[in-house]
Amino acid sequence: MTFLSKTILPRGFKASGVSAGIKKSGKPDLALFYSEISAKAACVFTSNKIKAAPLKLNIRLLKTNKSFRAIIVNSGNANCFTGRAGLKDANAVAGFLAKELKVRPASILVNSTGIIGKRLAVDKIKSSVPKLVKGLSKSGIAQAKKAILTTDTFSKEAGAKFLIGNKPVTILGVAKGAGMISPDMATLLVFILTDADISQNALKAVLSESVNNSFNLITVDGCMSTNDSVMLLANGAAGNAIITSGKNLTIFTRVLNSVCLELAKMVVKDGEGTTKFIEITVDKAKNENEAKKAALAVANSNLFKTAVYGENPNFGRIAAAIGASGIDVSEEGLKIKVSTIDKKEIKVYCAINKGKAKATVYTSDLTPEYIKINAEYN
Amino acid sequence: MTFLSKTILPRGFKASGVSAGIKKSGKPDLALFYSEISAKAACVFTSNKIKAAPLKLNIRLLKTNKSFRAIIVNSGNANCFTGRAGLKDANAVAGFLAKELKVRPASILVNSTGIIGKRLAVDKIKSSVPKLVKGLSKSGIAQAKKAILTTDTFSKEAGAKFLIGNKPVTILGVAKGAGMISPDMATLLVFILTDADISQNALKAVLSESVNNSFNLITVDGCMSTNDSVMLLANGAAGNAIITSGKNLTIFTRVLNSVCLELAKMVVKDGEGTTKFIEITVDKAKNENEAKKAALAVANSNLFKTAVYGENPNFGRIAAAIGASGIDVSEEGLKIKVSTIDKKEIKVYCAINKGKAKATVYTSDLTPEYIKINAEYN
Repeated sequence: MTFLSKTILPRGFKASGVSAGIKKSGKPDLALFYSEISAKAACVFTSNKIKAAPLKLNIRLLKTNKSFRAIIVNSGNANCFTGRAGLKDANAVAGFLAKELKVRPASILVNSTGIIGKRLAVDKIKSSVPKLVKGLSKSGIAQAKKAILTTDTFSKEAGAKFLIGNKPVTILGVAKGAGMISPDMATLLVFILTDADISQNALKAVLSESVNNSFNLITVDGCMSTNDSVMLLANGAAGNAIITSGKNLTIFTRVLNSVCLELAKMVVKDGEGTTKFIEITVDKAKNENEAKKAALAVANSNLFKTAVYGENPNFGRIAAAIGASGIDVSEEGLKIKVSTIDKKEIKVYCAINKGKAKATVYTSDLTPEYIKINAEYN
Repeated sequence: MTFLSKTILPRGFKASGVSAGIKKSGKPDLALFYSEISAKAACVFTSNKIKAAPLKLNIRLLKTNKSFRAIIVNSGNANCFTGRAGLKDANAVAGFLAKELKVRPASILVNSTGIIGKRLAVDKIKSSVPKLVKGLSKSGIAQAKKAILTTDTFSKEAGAKFLIGNKPVTILGVAKGAGMISPDMATLLVFILTDADISQNALKAVLSESVNNSFNLITVDGCMSTNDSVMLLANGAAGNAIITSGKNLTIFTRVLNSVCLELAKMVVKDGEGTTKFIEITVDKAKNENEAKKAALAVANSNLFKTAVYGENPNFGRIAAAIGASGIDVSEEGLKIKVSTIDKKEIKVYCAINKGKAKATVYTSDLTPEYIKINAEYN
């Protein structure tokens, strides 16, 4: 496997991005990912009990429908906490696009990200859809990946090329992150396209594993979003022997894991107001769950995160966070190492002397800029 | 019951506070609360698995010893994550004081608060103990309540006078707070003195109830401390009929609840960098536990807290936090009201339409000043 050094859309996919006027700034805010042929889909959604309208729509759709053609995404408005009206709006967006693409509305996945609790400007989307569809091309991915962003400062993309049998297969993923980033759900919006031919069951299983090993290991602010979705479309255009199990599934899983982890790290690096990227490993835990729990407790400690921002290596705050995490740990067994803290990337290693399990999570520091961004966000 | 409008130490108690030089600032950092006669004690400690040395000492002591004479407190150093040496240091402090007071070391409760992971300057405490003991007086409480503070900007005190039978009884509590404030444990340091005569069992039960209804309902930064302790000394000097159950216990409980809640609110109002006091009520929950869980999820949401700082009424962040809290809730059933947000005190009311239970918690906003304080703290 080699990571893609430049953007390559997998075969059979096109993309597009336009400014629909949902964002006051006039920046791109409407994106489309389109497969020329029928694609299988696997999705992971937030476990937040308050789910945005498009998620409700998608969850219902995925229960009955197995063939998809497009993902539409607006940024600037989350279409969440908007009740029945919000659901109607999400349906309307799918309807406009279906008509323009000449596909069934049920083959479209709808996504929204941005402010919670406000009605979506459906009319703006309606009038922008023709231009959006017209703009579909291989190079349209450049605009599409910008149009999904909110407070992100750079667009996030990771892709890889590899062989299944003798057929070259491509995976390309794009993500938006920045705030309301906390794990134990599919965090943020991620769209992954692949031309691999892979069975529906394998696709679902592999995405779930990859999300657990990437997006569920990151946190920016411990806040769980209502709109988080990771979507994977596989259209089979690579013409490989269908992946179901065995060696080929192992290869595909490894590549997808790498792509997801790469995107997850980018999301952390672009965490709102962040100045440091922090890797936290908890080792010698009773089991992986306890290792992860302890590592996330450190990653979500405001006191630890401000200490890193202040380049102030405060071991006590790490110990306090692990002690409060609810896992089995004792002062005597706890060893903490922190790398030089005046660098942009910090590593924290904690051994807790209770077993052999290990977990690594990723986070950013907590800065005055984070507060500024979120105090003013509206 | 009437709240005390000026500081009155309950009968049989004296206090003192001096500068021992533990704090670099030279501010008072060593406090003593002393009972002239034997007092019963009830304590609640942090549930953090990493407990400071003095807590380990106190926990052991309380298992066997039923009679106490003094509480000594140093600020500026938490004597936590200091291993066997830290335990030896805490023991030494009790030893110096016991000798000077001419009491048994086992009748002394030791407390520390401040930075974690550094050895305590035991020699500085040793040389300050004679002056500390000499300073014991009724008016010494003024210095004592200052000497327990760390990043607090004001000292916190609440007291009440009431009758048990025909005997006037006094309760006086002092607290320190500011950072590492998160509930589900006895948060922060609180010392409560009363001249009531009350049975050991009743004392323990009533303190536990009061802590649950006050300090366990507040959060500043969601970070659980390693040193949190609430200590209640009752020396019986009021000469009331001993409180064991029934009406008198009800009276005592009600007063102690009020004193604790008053102190807890002061701790929040003095949260590090805070500009707003926020009261969050979750109503119509399935049970009290779910109501509390949801209210605390909002109170610990960095996004909600920055929105309040920015005077930016962002209902979506409240909905997102409740949805992520793990309780049973649906968008349809959720109603949110927020008081005018440009005031110093904000009220949030959420009804979740799942039952009849209700809980109120207290928190502060998250500000750039919090980050400044904690980035530089060392």
